[in-house]
Amino acid sequence: MVKLNHHYQKLSGDYLFPEIDKKIAALKTKNPSASLINLGIGDVTIPLPPTVISALSLASQEMGEKGTFRGYGPSQGYLFLREAISNGDYRGSIAPDEIFISNGAKCDLGHLQEIFATDNRVALPDPTYPVYLDTNVMAGRTRLPLKTGRFGGITYLSCTEENEFQPEPPNTHSDLIYLCSPNNPTGVAMTRDLLKKWIAYAKEHQAVILFDGAYEAYVTSPDVPRSIYEIEGAKEVAIEVRSYSKTAGFSGLRCSYTVVPRDLKVLDAGKMHSLHDLWKRRCDTKFNGVPYPVQKAAAALYTPQGLLESKKIIETYLAGARYLKQELEAMGLTVYGGTDAPYLWCKTPLKLTSWEFFDRLLDKAHLITVPGQGFGSLGDSFIRLSAFADISLLKEAISRLKSMPI
Amino acid sequence: MVKLNHHYQKLSGDYLFPEIDKKIAALKTKNPSASLINLGIGDVTIPLPPTVISALSLASQEMGEKGTFRGYGPSQGYLFLREAISNGDYRGSIAPDEIFISNGAKCDLGHLQEIFATDNRVALPDPTYPVYLDTNVMAGRTRLPLKTGRFGGITYLSCTEENEFQPEPPNTHSDLIYLCSPNNPTGVAMTRDLLKKWIAYAKEHQAVILFDGAYEAYVTSPDVPRSIYEIEGAKEVAIEVRSYSKTAGFSGLRCSYTVVPRDLKVLDAGKMHSLHDLWKRRCDTKFNGVPYPVQKAAAALYTPQGLLESKKIIETYLAGARYLKQELEAMGLTVYGGTDAPYLWCKTPLKLTSWEFFDRLLDKAHLITVPGQGFGSLGDSFIRLSAFADISLLKEAISRLKSMPI
Repeated sequence: MVKLNHHYQKLSGDYLFPEIDKKIAALKTKNPSASLINLGIGDVTIPLPPTVISALSLASQEMGEKGTFRGYGPSQGYLFLREAISNGDYRGSIAPDEIFISNGAKCDLGHLQEIFATDNRVALPDPTYPVYLDTNVMAGRTRLPLKTGRFGGITYLSCTEENEFQPEPPNTHSDLIYLCSPNNPTGVAMTRDLLKKWIAYAKEHQAVILFDGAYEAYVTSPDVPRSIYEIEGAKEVAIEVRSYSKTAGFSGLRCSYTVVPRDLKVLDAGKMHSLHDLWKRRCDTKFNGVPYPVQKAAAALYTPQGLLESKKIIETYLAGARYLKQELEAMGLTVYGGTDAPYLWCKTPLKLTSWEFFDRLLDKAHLITVPGQGFGSLGDSFIRLSAFADISLLKEAISRLKSMPI
Repeated sequence: MVKLNHHYQKLSGDYLFPEIDKKIAALKTKNPSASLINLGIGDVTIPLPPTVISALSLASQEMGEKGTFRGYGPSQGYLFLREAISNGDYRGSIAPDEIFISNGAKCDLGHLQEIFATDNRVALPDPTYPVYLDTNVMAGRTRLPLKTGRFGGITYLSCTEENEFQPEPPNTHSDLIYLCSPNNPTGVAMTRDLLKKWIAYAKEHQAVILFDGAYEAYVTSPDVPRSIYEIEGAKEVAIEVRSYSKTAGFSGLRCSYTVVPRDLKVLDAGKMHSLHDLWKRRCDTKFNGVPYPVQKAAAALYTPQGLLESKKIIETYLAGARYLKQELEAMGLTVYGGTDAPYLWCKTPLKLTSWEFFDRLLDKAHLITVPGQGFGSLGDSFIRLSAFADISLLKEAISRLKSMPI
């Protein structure tokens, strides 16, 4: 009789966003004429920039011509894109060979744990992007969930108002550490000094850091590194994942990349192993690359015109984040983030839980947000707001909030 | 100290195709002017049909306009494509809700094992597509490899000349069964009567069949089902995976789908579980869907013009397969497959091993093939030839073979 992966049973019901979708559907049934404003799901709204569309269209045409048609590409991604990343994002300090093109940061962050044993001690921020935890639950690296929603067997790195959402390395041992900076959902980025401590901790504990830099393009603070490799020694302990979803509107096109430095070696069972080789083997076996036109579209972002266009998109979203933050604070709400990220982390008023505040905003203002509880137990007195919306919508949202009894 | 997934160490060196690539690179270094003919890697060569290119280009343009831009799509895939598949490929007998759009049959066939426990007994054909075995090795479902290359803990379903490459269910128990029909690499498809036996076996053993139908569009024999769901009761025991790579040239665009019927329930720890729910949870957590333009391109295949164009492509490749088979047989070689698949399974002459014959064909005729050993120990006296090449190239290949001392 076939046996199932029992670890799935440990997961709590639905994944966050499907649950939100259900509540939206219920509201629409109850009130079909409701005009909803989505400050929730974290999806971009500005169309892909013209340079990207040109490259995408041109490569699409190539796929219809005998001389330029391309079948399977390298599972690691085309060299033209890996070279553009190496030069454009790392000034050559990361080699094209150390870069793996993928169909989403979510996928890679979900899959990277596969190359590690199941008995590693995982550390991850609370709150943070749920994929880190859920994929480790699925792989059996946790015990059962506790009443708080936290899982036995995981080291939680508390991100609170007290530590300004900047978690220090723990006093205990961990093997596999997820860091997200700028963090989703708090919108707070880790400073250079804090990241130095994490690199030192990883070296001391012979741990590996999985660094999610999906929002690096939003960093504006001078003391915040955009890449973990800006910190000395990081190449020996860290894997970095980045995405084009939030930097250039690729959430519907699906393209991201993961850096696994050649210097990242792990001593296991008396032998040194290259994580690069392990990850390459995994990709060769389970992946066949990203569509050629999508890789050409991503490469276009590194042209002078592509850089200008994507910069403009990011500035638009950051301006929206600043506006939202200012207005919400003026209304007496406590708000974090929004400076180095498109996200605001807004404290619930009146000691409401995050789902209570979510329901209230949805019902009374037809505003979609994300309840912080979906990102971890410490998120339960916050909601996440994203600035991925037209400024006119943000203004309308603020106007609705102002006229709503909080 | 971080610990690695030790199961990766059980895998033999490189994955098949990278190994072949190395040998090709070595030949090119030795003989830069060599004009290679690739009858190996199984990649299509005919460009995407015009209807697909139109849909792809149009959808690409949509991504640049405010009114039509799309960000994240459903992780399960857009309904327009799932409806087209439900009607076009299954005449409505499979519901859109049972279909999951994916970025490659290889990916899904690699990931599906995740929803099952690690202590299931896996059965798979020898020879067959290496991804089934490798991903189960990585997940720890095997013991160490034996001298033959086979792994302890796996039930191998021998595909030999004696059983006409049609493996019967074993006398022993298995839980998770991989079937590939038409089979890669033998090119032989399973008959209706044999598949009935497999469905009966799966029911008796409460096993699940993972049915790889990537080559279904090539079936020409009347007694060979194109879908496992043509067999009564299959919905209760089988998951079917299909791909657009070989039917319409999507190997560089990346689109496939997996059917997980609602009727597929598994009794585990005293409770019935829906595999559909488990797989959906996995996709929601680790996947963010296929690019919107690629899904529009796939949907275009179900228009009358799209159907005509893809049919023509398949007929071209099948004509090539027939030609190759006829010529090779006329040269005295023993050849299987090629009737219901684009692959020929050619026995090595003079008791050569498959890598020896591969090397010989590469060195003497500059022909790229795939050594059968890469697909399983029983493949070691065969090579795989594919008909994914222009007829002029196939003719040139035959001409080279005729003038070469075998």
